[in-house]
Amino acid sequence: MSDGTALRGLSESGRVAAPGEGIGLDELGLAARNHGVLLEALRHDVTPPGLHYLLTHYDVPFLDPDEWRLTLRGAVRTPRTLTLADLQARPAVTQRVTLECAGNGRARLEPRPVSQPWLVEAVGTAEWTGTPLAPLLGEAGIGPAAVDVVFTGADHGVERGVEQDYARGLPVAEALREDVVLAWAMNGAPLPPQHGFPVRLVVPGWYGMAHVKWLTAIEVLQRSFDGYQNAVAYRLAGEDPDDPGEPVTRIRPRALVVPPGFPDFLSRSRVVRPGRCLLEGRAWSGRAPVVQVEVSTDGGTTWDAADLEPADPRHPYAWRRFTYGWDATPGSYELCARASDAEGGQPLEQPWNRQGMANNLVQRIGVVVTEVGG
Amino acid sequence: MSDGTALRGLSESGRVAAPGEGIGLDELGLAARNHGVLLEALRHDVTPPGLHYLLTHYDVPFLDPDEWRLTLRGAVRTPRTLTLADLQARPAVTQRVTLECAGNGRARLEPRPVSQPWLVEAVGTAEWTGTPLAPLLGEAGIGPAAVDVVFTGADHGVERGVEQDYARGLPVAEALREDVVLAWAMNGAPLPPQHGFPVRLVVPGWYGMAHVKWLTAIEVLQRSFDGYQNAVAYRLAGEDPDDPGEPVTRIRPRALVVPPGFPDFLSRSRVVRPGRCLLEGRAWSGRAPVVQVEVSTDGGTTWDAADLEPADPRHPYAWRRFTYGWDATPGSYELCARASDAEGGQPLEQPWNRQGMANNLVQRIGVVVTEVGG
Repeated sequence: MSDGTALRGLSESGRVAAPGEGIGLDELGLAARNHGVLLEALRHDVTPPGLHYLLTHYDVPFLDPDEWRLTLRGAVRTPRTLTLADLQARPAVTQRVTLECAGNGRARLEPRPVSQPWLVEAVGTAEWTGTPLAPLLGEAGIGPAAVDVVFTGADHGVERGVEQDYARGLPVAEALREDVVLAWAMNGAPLPPQHGFPVRLVVPGWYGMAHVKWLTAIEVLQRSFDGYQNAVAYRLAGEDPDDPGEPVTRIRPRALVVPPGFPDFLSRSRVVRPGRCLLEGRAWSGRAPVVQVEVSTDGGTTWDAADLEPADPRHPYAWRRFTYGWDATPGSYELCARASDAEGGQPLEQPWNRQGMANNLVQRIGVVVTEVGG
Repeated sequence: MSDGTALRGLSESGRVAAPGEGIGLDELGLAARNHGVLLEALRHDVTPPGLHYLLTHYDVPFLDPDEWRLTLRGAVRTPRTLTLADLQARPAVTQRVTLECAGNGRARLEPRPVSQPWLVEAVGTAEWTGTPLAPLLGEAGIGPAAVDVVFTGADHGVERGVEQDYARGLPVAEALREDVVLAWAMNGAPLPPQHGFPVRLVVPGWYGMAHVKWLTAIEVLQRSFDGYQNAVAYRLAGEDPDDPGEPVTRIRPRALVVPPGFPDFLSRSRVVRPGRCLLEGRAWSGRAPVVQVEVSTDGGTTWDAADLEPADPRHPYAWRRFTYGWDATPGSYELCARASDAEGGQPLEQPWNRQGMANNLVQRIGVVVTEVGG
């Protein structure tokens, strides 16, 4: 707020947990709302409805599609306002895209940035149907001086003391990519309320923060957008509080294994019967094709190549399945998988950043191989 | 396991957190999988798909409906095996039912039982379509000596050292109620995998543990079922570890308010503009009709009756909407709501039990009323 007092105690500055500090009720309140994919659902090429990860900054707005309008404004020759019918009358494309939250893995960082405490599950793959954005921008006339395109959603809240509608700027070159769409359907059905009904942005390859939900406005700027979600949040910043950090953009490579065998209720550790065990999982990267997936059964000491399914040219931004045949003999194991793209692979030790962003530390799954029943 | 060693360290006994102990990574791992309803979705009579609460003990099994079979066995004259088509050829009914997890509210107990750390959101309302169970049991011939009917699901795991398929016994008198159904549809569509596809049990009025998902077997016993989920879990037990406690059965009354205004991202506390504010929410009980809902804006010191919508005889087990007009003037407030049924109301101070079960402590929402922007 402007004088910084009325919301004191309600909307705190960002902080990092003390050494050994457990997850607080504030972080738990976020974890109870925002949910990851169930790792066993990684079997599916397309994540079934309700199992895709979900992150809502403020409240899900429940919008009336008949009342809904999208304003296209700013540095354009012809501002306009579109209805849902206007959008749906335009050419439609469907794209299979893997989305991941930029904060995925944050809860395992030490010290832990206090925010949505993701472990590894903030991912999902869906078929998004919508109309390409570039022709709309072209018709409106954006000109060569355009720098950023700002997408504003209907969700309204306070974050670190700043009241806002959620809004993100995207560099104009990205906004003009032919695969960036205004989507109204997910897996062939209207968007569920929590995924942006009636219309959201989809920017294949970028972390989830770019895919603005509940879109209400698109504004072309002839300068960089300096709103909260670009200038303050979603930065790769170090310990120095004056370091603004680099912006978070594209998804770094990650592989996740479907946990084999069966779980313990509380620890989620696994029991596997001795014998041949086909491990399977999914690997993705938003910045370049995945070139290799490796599996370790000894906590990352030794690695072996997994079989990675060929890239499908129809789905350049969807995860890919990998498999690995493991001869499981009695004992205790720690399974890991790591993906690499042309720019590099996943770290075993995480370079820390203050917001816990773009963390792609390798997954670790504790497994006991035993004949004995539980 | 039988000798108690191979799974040591993987599947621990139940425990209670130490004073001041934060939520651990094990509890967080459950919170990342299992999710509550978004409180803003309490506006809806029927919870939209993907927003209903979800609790999975082990892994979601992904079952082939063509291969799926349901065995009806035990103390019956005519055991039989049913296909999905067999069930769907029988008379179908649709019922609107509010489901709540028996562990709802556990994370706010002090000391905190270590398990799925729900705050208040483990609830949802759906339209369940299926065929009544009683005629099936009648045709099979269960006889007057039947005591419990045991429902087994396909989800398999270890819990507190005990390997099991999830299985729950239900007293035969409950199993024979005409509103207990074998359901294959939720909100008019086939059950999503995570809600029990292809068939689950629905026992209106009971906490969620009774509504066994991914049903594979129904067994009639002429004794009480002594399996883990009845004899060990889902008990109202005190501090004495030798106290087995009473079984958890029907849902106690609870009211939840849709948080007004807009939230802070991290604390989920609310900002409300001064003026008339219509609070709304939902109230339910599984043991008797809700007779009263009261609202407090001062943290429970004083209470005022809310307007409760009339009971709808078509939906005796669905939550009911309530509203309360609040003249919000600048300041800080704690909003609460409490529901009462004929047997009593919600407590302001929680009688503690060792598993954190059937806890219906009143919800508290921090609100700042201010003209000032955030």
